[in-house]
Amino acid sequence: MTPYLEEHSEQVGQAAERIRGHVRRTPVLNTDLDSDLYLKPECLQVTGSFKPRGAFNAVLSLTARTPRPSGVIAVSSGNHAQAVALAAATVGLPALILIPEDANPAKVAATRALGAEVIQEGITFANREQRLREVMAERGYTLVHPFDDWDVIHGQGTVVRELLDDEPDLQAVATPVGGGGLLAGSAISAKSHGRPVKVIGVEPVAADDAYRTWKTGRIEVLPSSPTTLADGVRTTAIGARNFEVMFANRLVDEIVTVTEEEIATAVRVAWSRVHLALEPTGALPLAAYLAGKLPKGRTGLVLSGGNANFATVATLL
Amino acid sequence: MTPYLEEHSEQVGQAAERIRGHVRRTPVLNTDLDSDLYLKPECLQVTGSFKPRGAFNAVLSLTARTPRPSGVIAVSSGNHAQAVALAAATVGLPALILIPEDANPAKVAATRALGAEVIQEGITFANREQRLREVMAERGYTLVHPFDDWDVIHGQGTVVRELLDDEPDLQAVATPVGGGGLLAGSAISAKSHGRPVKVIGVEPVAADDAYRTWKTGRIEVLPSSPTTLADGVRTTAIGARNFEVMFANRLVDEIVTVTEEEIATAVRVAWSRVHLALEPTGALPLAAYLAGKLPKGRTGLVLSGGNANFATVATLL
Repeated sequence: MTPYLEEHSEQVGQAAERIRGHVRRTPVLNTDLDSDLYLKPECLQVTGSFKPRGAFNAVLSLTARTPRPSGVIAVSSGNHAQAVALAAATVGLPALILIPEDANPAKVAATRALGAEVIQEGITFANREQRLREVMAERGYTLVHPFDDWDVIHGQGTVVRELLDDEPDLQAVATPVGGGGLLAGSAISAKSHGRPVKVIGVEPVAADDAYRTWKTGRIEVLPSSPTTLADGVRTTAIGARNFEVMFANRLVDEIVTVTEEEIATAVRVAWSRVHLALEPTGALPLAAYLAGKLPKGRTGLVLSGGNANFATVATLL
Repeated sequence: MTPYLEEHSEQVGQAAERIRGHVRRTPVLNTDLDSDLYLKPECLQVTGSFKPRGAFNAVLSLTARTPRPSGVIAVSSGNHAQAVALAAATVGLPALILIPEDANPAKVAATRALGAEVIQEGITFANREQRLREVMAERGYTLVHPFDDWDVIHGQGTVVRELLDDEPDLQAVATPVGGGGLLAGSAISAKSHGRPVKVIGVEPVAADDAYRTWKTGRIEVLPSSPTTLADGVRTTAIGARNFEVMFANRLVDEIVTVTEEEIATAVRVAWSRVHLALEPTGALPLAAYLAGKLPKGRTGLVLSGGNANFATVATLL
């Protein structure tokens, strides 16, 4: 193990200690599909996705480092918003979440219900980074980035750490990849496991920036936020820290892409054969498995979340 | 503990040993709904419902008792059919399943895929008992009754046995009740737990024979198979053995009824907040909880299965 990997693996271990009691240890599930398949259903996690692992690690690290932080801020229309709202509320910090105006009202309501202040007025997918910097300057709040942040990456690394703790003989793990928080954390945990474990990221063909980044060896940026059923991975590029872990340090072995039809099939199979209600993003690794795009052998799939839109799911079924 | 309860509890323990390796030990889940709620999601069980527990116990007991059984037979259009087909295939016995002509083709296909012979021609919900006796006489196969059978009752008792083993401090458990196999088995396990645990059966208002049986103290029979979203509990009466355990021996404390609207809400909440894909029957205890019809305190809900019809679910969502 390189010193780089050793250091980050230790940080994941510290994250696991830090967030214990705030997040659930989700079970590992077997299915009727294939006895070589092991599912880590993070849809059963607090708030319905893996995101509180990183958010709690970031917020708890912040309060340990800074005597009196004034608050935290996040930009998200989805699972990261709820995760940051919950983590901030738990430690008694104000949380401000910028959510684009056209976001799903149910997710906005869920974020407010967790005690966060939400600003939507004038926020678009395009201008949100700039509005973020303005609001940060005004309020002095600390940003909790959804993926390009070491505390977040180390927190997300606890998913695969638990999975390999429960199933030490896995030969491969596959996770969704958007900005690369989950995949970078998973790669750290898998490559420091002590036995060889292949690490595979899965993304939609329609949002294949990580695939192209893997191929070219430099961060490739999509011209605009892609349209895909998997609305949790609509980022246009992975982060700098995520690139460093995943590709500069070669801790990720492969990026696999799946079509929209393969994602839809996976959501249906998850419902009908596995009996988990996944959001399309959470079904990405299952989509790759069902399409025959993952290596043979004992494989762990990180099913990252379940916060699907009723209307979308009803159409898929 | 009465000698009656002690004897049956021991049989549940033997069933647990017998079926180990053939069924899954499903996890116990916490949710974001209420920290006092503990879910036993049998939708994650082999074939998607709790039924293989009873079916494996019956088939394995049969092969232990009888030198060369010629085969097994069951009447079912749902989860029991697949469970018996799987158990018989596992031990290498022929299985014949009688399924009414109007049954869901997907369930028929799933039963055939497990290696069972299926007879549908001329089978109706009304005449199936008689056709059963005819076919049993012709073939000499042994019946695996879906609920009025001690091996089946003891097998189903392993669900709550595991639940209380994992969560010994529960104050109440709630399960669906149709013919009473799951509820009778659950009552045996709960009342032999060593600490007081209330046992509650949940059924649709539209199929309230168990409720009326509880009230009158004798087996009440519905005039015809009821129409309800919860198609797993469309039986017209509980069985004699189930009555004996549940009411004659007073091992069940209460029967609660829920409306169709309450069942629909529970399926939606299971999807959106718990991220489990339940069939309406499997959501009955959650429906009772959400409607405020269960006692306060640490409560275990047995979510019995997940084999929902896509069309039904899409409409509910």
